[in-house]
Amino acid sequence: MIDPTASIGANAELGEEVIIEQGVTIGEGVTIGHHVVIKKDTSVGNFVRIDDHSVIGKMPGTNKKMARKPSSQLKPLVIGDEVTIGANCVLYCGSTIENGVFVGDLASIREKVTVKEDSIIGRNAIIETSTEIGRRVTIQTGCYVTADMFIEDEVFMGPCVSTSNDKYMGSGGSPHAGPILRKGAKIGNNATLLPGIEIKENAIVGAGAVVTKDVQAGCVVVGSPARVLRSKAGG
Amino acid sequence: MIDPTASIGANAELGEEVIIEQGVTIGEGVTIGHHVVIKKDTSVGNFVRIDDHSVIGKMPGTNKKMARKPSSQLKPLVIGDEVTIGANCVLYCGSTIENGVFVGDLASIREKVTVKEDSIIGRNAIIETSTEIGRRVTIQTGCYVTADMFIEDEVFMGPCVSTSNDKYMGSGGSPHAGPILRKGAKIGNNATLLPGIEIKENAIVGAGAVVTKDVQAGCVVVGSPARVLRSKAGG
Amino acid sequence: MIDPTASIGANAELGEEVIIEQGVTIGEGVTIGHHVVIKKDTSVGNFVRIDDHSVIGKMPGTNKKMARKPSSQLKPLVIGDEVTIGANCVLYCGSTIENGVFVGDLASIREKVTVKEDSIIGRNAIIETSTEIGRRVTIQTGCYVTADMFIEDEVFMGPCVSTSNDKYMGSGGSPHAGPILRKGAKIGNNATLLPGIEIKENAIVGAGAVVTKDVQAGCVVVGSPARVLRSKAGG
Repeated sequence: MIDPTASIGANAELGEEVIIEQGVTIGEGVTIGHHVVIKKDTSVGNFVRIDDHSVIGKMPGTNKKMARKPSSQLKPLVIGDEVTIGANCVLYCGSTIENGVFVGDLASIREKVTVKEDSIIGRNAIIETSTEIGRRVTIQTGCYVTADMFIEDEVFMGPCVSTSNDKYMGSGGSPHAGPILRKGAKIGNNATLLPGIEIKENAIVGAGAVVTKDVQAGCVVVGSPARVLRSKAGG
Repeated sequence: MIDPTASIGANAELGEEVIIEQGVTIGEGVTIGHHVVIKKDTSVGNFVRIDDHSVIGKMPGTNKKMARKPSSQLKPLVIGDEVTIGANCVLYCGSTIENGVFVGDLASIREKVTVKEDSIIGRNAIIETSTEIGRRVTIQTGCYVTADMFIEDEVFMGPCVSTSNDKYMGSGGSPHAGPILRKGAKIGNNATLLPGIEIKENAIVGAGAVVTKDVQAGCVVVGSPARVLRSKAGG
Repeated sequence: MIDPTASIGANAELGEEVIIEQGVTIGEGVTIGHHVVIKKDTSVGNFVRIDDHSVIGKMPGTNKKMARKPSSQLKPLVIGDEVTIGANCVLYCGSTIENGVFVGDLASIREKVTVKEDSIIGRNAIIETSTEIGRRVTIQTGCYVTADMFIEDEVFMGPCVSTSNDKYMGSGGSPHAGPILRKGAKIGNNATLLPGIEIKENAIVGAGAVVTKDVQAGCVVVGSPARVLRSKAGG
């Protein structure tokens, strides 16, 4: 079902049973898999590939217990040129996915997120709302990026890194604050980052570390809780 | 394809290519997304929202090596009123989702599970079979809730908490026993809970902790293995 | 949509809106759920069950920043007899799933992977490319199996185990090397395994452990970093 108000550029390849809702704009040379759903007013650039069963431009839901109510004023989702989106993904409206980004299968990206050029969001990775992700960032498979995070260019998050933004775990008492990852920081697989900490430029967090406080630029930290192994990353 | 034996209440909004199998009962005012599959005999309450590509009421499968064979006598899935279910979810038959529950995208809930009123099951969270989840519980994104767990009211599990129920890791030798989380317990992100432990009322487990034994009421534990930081949670 | 060049054996049960592309071969007695997509040239054995919304035989994608470019010479996916595949899964071409394997919902398996007879890949588990998984292996729910791993027969990986293969986290400087898990090794839930380590025959890694070096046969290791608890696993 392609809504008659949708616009699709030249040389598109569309799968079977694709659903394109009202006002969607799609560039030229796109490849869209079977059963893909593109929601109202989403904008898709040129030479984009979207694989089977993905949901693109979803509106958030809510329930009584949730602290953060979705804005009724969200803008449509904007997807740049040469973006690749895997199968069975869920991308929300109100976000921007810049040129050259790769999103793996089964990933989800919430509203009010920016993913800048040429970054990778791995399979099954989850990006919460109101997070900014820089250029050429790698967020590997299975990472959990909490709300209100700030991730600078060329950060590397290994598989299954877990982050959090709520010191009081749902009790109220402080504003939420996600970790800040400065340019070139590298986080090992299955590391745990606590709310509000800052991992400074080119710092390295070892696999499985539990980081409870800031890590200085160029430092290597390991362990639970993480302690400094080297104060300057060796070559 | 809507089976002629299915019953759908007033003011339903159904997406494209929705499949509703025999004997399904749906209340009034529901919103069902594109490509949703609702299996045989499932009961859906009033004002429920189910997003695109979710599978509702699935029968379990099995193979030769699996210890736990699915019962052939499972009841249909029952979903209460004002429940919200995200996109690309998989919910099994034989479970009950009470009024006001929120289930995030890409989550799955196995058979013989009860989720009580107003609880939240985060995106990508996985709830295994034969687990009971109380009222106003928060199970955040990416949590793994093993089989045979018992989670009381107002428990908070942060993102990516991992639990287990099999001390002997597939060798046999003891019955499976999941952790027990008592009322108001809070578990930090990416914590690891071992089989059969009990986290008592209002106890707090720090992010990344590995909990190998019971935690007393009101205590705070951190580290690997977790040790007591405070014997009574401060205000 | 079933392509006229596809071949489907006797007694198949196909759901609604199933898409079977060119050259697909399907054995007898298969059950295929609603909205399933089976890609070009995939071979499916006898008595296989594939649940709703799964994508079978996907071609890999890529972007500028990704180190590993997908081969343009991948063979089709081969699925043996009596295999069960859950809902919302994504299985790539170029892999072999042998007889009797069980794959849980929302799991994904990349190209150039072999999963041998009667093994279990849990729900939400992710298997990266170029990995070999032996017979009667259990990979529980939510595990992350990195690229270039080698997993022998009867290994048990508990839920949410995380592995990695890149010591330099995206900086280059060494070939990738995944962990090696020898016959009968058991890995506790949410354990972290570093690149290139070897867990030898019947060794046991405790839940939440961070394993930074080889573990000898029959040893039990726990903690962060993992240390030897017993040099020979007790009965």
